[in-house]
Amino acid sequence: MLKDSYLVGLIGSGIGPSLSPALHEREAGRQGLRCLYRLLDLDVIGVPPEGVGELLDAARLLGFDGLNITHPCKRHVVEHLDALDPRAEALGAVNTVVFQDGRAVGHNTDVTGFAASFARGLPDVPLEHVVQLGAGGAGAAVAHALLTLGAGRITVVDALPERADELAGSLHRAFGADRADAAPLELLPELLALADGSGGLVHATPTGMAAHPGLPLPADLLHPGLWVAEVVYRPLETDLLRAARAAGCATLDGGGMAAFQAADAFRLFTGREPDRARMLAHLARLTRLTDLTDPVSAPR
Amino acid sequence: MLKDSYLVGLIGSGIGPSLSPALHEREAGRQGLRCLYRLLDLDVIGVPPEGVGELLDAARLLGFDGLNITHPCKRHVVEHLDALDPRAEALGAVNTVVFQDGRAVGHNTDVTGFAASFARGLPDVPLEHVVQLGAGGAGAAVAHALLTLGAGRITVVDALPERADELAGSLHRAFGADRADAAPLELLPELLALADGSGGLVHATPTGMAAHPGLPLPADLLHPGLWVAEVVYRPLETDLLRAARAAGCATLDGGGMAAFQAADAFRLFTGREPDRARMLAHLARLTRLTDLTDPVSAPR
Repeated sequence: MLKDSYLVGLIGSGIGPSLSPALHEREAGRQGLRCLYRLLDLDVIGVPPEGVGELLDAARLLGFDGLNITHPCKRHVVEHLDALDPRAEALGAVNTVVFQDGRAVGHNTDVTGFAASFARGLPDVPLEHVVQLGAGGAGAAVAHALLTLGAGRITVVDALPERADELAGSLHRAFGADRADAAPLELLPELLALADGSGGLVHATPTGMAAHPGLPLPADLLHPGLWVAEVVYRPLETDLLRAARAAGCATLDGGGMAAFQAADAFRLFTGREPDRARMLAHLARLTRLTDLTDPVSAPR
Repeated sequence: MLKDSYLVGLIGSGIGPSLSPALHEREAGRQGLRCLYRLLDLDVIGVPPEGVGELLDAARLLGFDGLNITHPCKRHVVEHLDALDPRAEALGAVNTVVFQDGRAVGHNTDVTGFAASFARGLPDVPLEHVVQLGAGGAGAAVAHALLTLGAGRITVVDALPERADELAGSLHRAFGADRADAAPLELLPELLALADGSGGLVHATPTGMAAHPGLPLPADLLHPGLWVAEVVYRPLETDLLRAARAAGCATLDGGGMAAFQAADAFRLFTGREPDRARMLAHLARLTRLTDLTDPVSAPR
């Protein structure tokens, strides 16, 4: 039987500006559910990232229905779970934990959220060769999503070469050695030129966020033969997206991933189908509001 | 600043039938607040009564606004608190914990709830000498409330004489040795005869609850010179109240205490004034519903 009230929360560091409470509580309210979405900020409650297991146990004991997990706990949390969704297992990172019959099951709705956003916003674009800038947590989720969506090959580029290598290795294990590689940052011009007409660029670094304004790469590397997908969503309209549109690229902003990871988590927490378009519109409204009032955006 | 959402719960044993979630959540809803009131049943989550401190720590860590505490934890919880309201301290028992600025403060709204119910339902009755049958947890709260309301003296009677002695001792320490005594059960007829015109009877044993039907004392001990206050509230209309009314006594049912302990806890949790009449009417409706569907009532 579906319940009419839900108790969930977000574990992470520096999550004060998170939009998740508003997204979840409002969608629940529209569906006639009472939902409390509480922020469990490690910095506020004084728990180290390794203490995520302790928080998980406490939440399970006190009848939480589930938790979202964000930086820096998405990997730490894995060992404390009873079961993993295959996508979360392949990625080695969990952003959503559902408590069911006393068991804690891990999911990754960053993966499913980006996949849904991409399929909706850039349908039918060529996926032969994707160049991805940024190999952090969001980047890993996005790369897994793109390969699941059928991308032929992803080349991962990061300012930290060992991080790019590590993500490429994880993609090899999950999808096969021919589906991914890592390349040094200096090769970015060549890679983007080669992708002409066959693929696009995914941007998954923090550059362009309100606290890190600017372009993550020279604007003259953009050309009409590329599509450009952005992961940053605060602001929704980044310098990169502006430059990409000016260069004639099809573009996708980061709002879809942000809204749909919440929508997928909502579905897992409640067993009910969220109104995805409504959540996306709400996210867009919230990002406009917080752009005006809060110069520091939360890490994803 | 007052918040618009509250996360609270009840710790106790066998609390499945508790009316508190419905009472709190509905009053909150009427005030435009989102409230989740969760049952943390020791029997369900497998925590012993001594584990109440651990649950308290977990709830504080996870951002609960407060907790109600019931049998068998009302005394165990005291040592885990940072501060106590004077009434809770005098009683040595806490049924409401509020988390404020990281501190856990204990209150007892069984005391304030009974006092409010008595003042409302039996105003101006003589309080020279009160005979109280039942010296358990509810009885202790009621005796403290009556002495606070100005009762001259309370004589405590219990089937377990040592329990009556213990409560009398606690009343001596809090209110002075001349305000309370204990008497054996066999003296009940004499005590009730003596109270003619100067006081009344408080009933604070489980007899009369749905699971323990019947009268807690011979009906012929009741006479028009007594008022009779009942603590049992499921059902609201007990055999004792019926017999007392038939004997010409002024009576008070247990609904007021049950509703007003919740109302006082609501005020402590939320900082907002509940609509007490609305909560009382809701409790009356809930007890009628549960009388029909659920033969086993919860211990207070």
